[in-house]
Amino acid sequence: MKEFKNVTIVKKANVYFDGKVTSRTVIFENGERKTLGIMLPGNYEFSTGDKEAMEILAGSLEVRLPGEDRFVTYKEGETFFVPANSKFSLKVNEASDYCCSYIKE
Amino acid sequence: MKEFKNVTIVKKANVYFDGKVTSRTVIFENGERKTLGIMLPGNYEFSTGDKEAMEILAGSLEVRLPGEDRFVTYKEGETFFVPANSKFSLKVNEASDYCCSYIKE
Repeated sequence: MKEFKNVTIVKKANVYFDGKVTSRTVIFENGERKTLGIMLPGNYEFSTGDKEAMEILAGSLEVRLPGEDRFVTYKEGETFFVPANSKFSLKVNEASDYCCSYIKE
Repeated sequence: MKEFKNVTIVKKANVYFDGKVTSRTVIFENGERKTLGIMLPGNYEFSTGDKEAMEILAGSLEVRLPGEDRFVTYKEGETFFVPANSKFSLKVNEASDYCCSYIKE
């Protein structure tokens, strides 16, 4: 879907890495939460709380998932999943747009 | 207000200047439209269609409005207005978060 309807959006952005990674929080009627974000080129490590589904909306990036040795490239239209309570590494080579869904298990 | 409720948000970001300026479009029940955006450090020139109200949510920037010679600094909590169908210049010195409202006249 190209739009999220009947949602609440938190006005202020979430800002990481001096603004090279930023996102906005969207809250759905059922309480589900997603973030819509932008990552500029750079290398980043993130930690998860809930399990995450990361959908790439534009651009591309390389991700190394927990327990993996190598980076795998994901591009526009693709999604990768990150386990709860883990860490993952990203190499972002071009400005990339994403939608992150937080999945309660 | 800290959140916008019962809105539609366009999933994909609007991306300008290689991603140094990005925003998300929020549409209200009455058809009103705002964008929530991030500007990273740099110098930018923008053109308006509708009149714009630019509210700084975090950070600070200098703006030169149409017909003005000098730049004026705006910071978190402050708003400047840009006339319809005009151009304005920005000097952004730190990552800045904003909410832009488009005003039909």
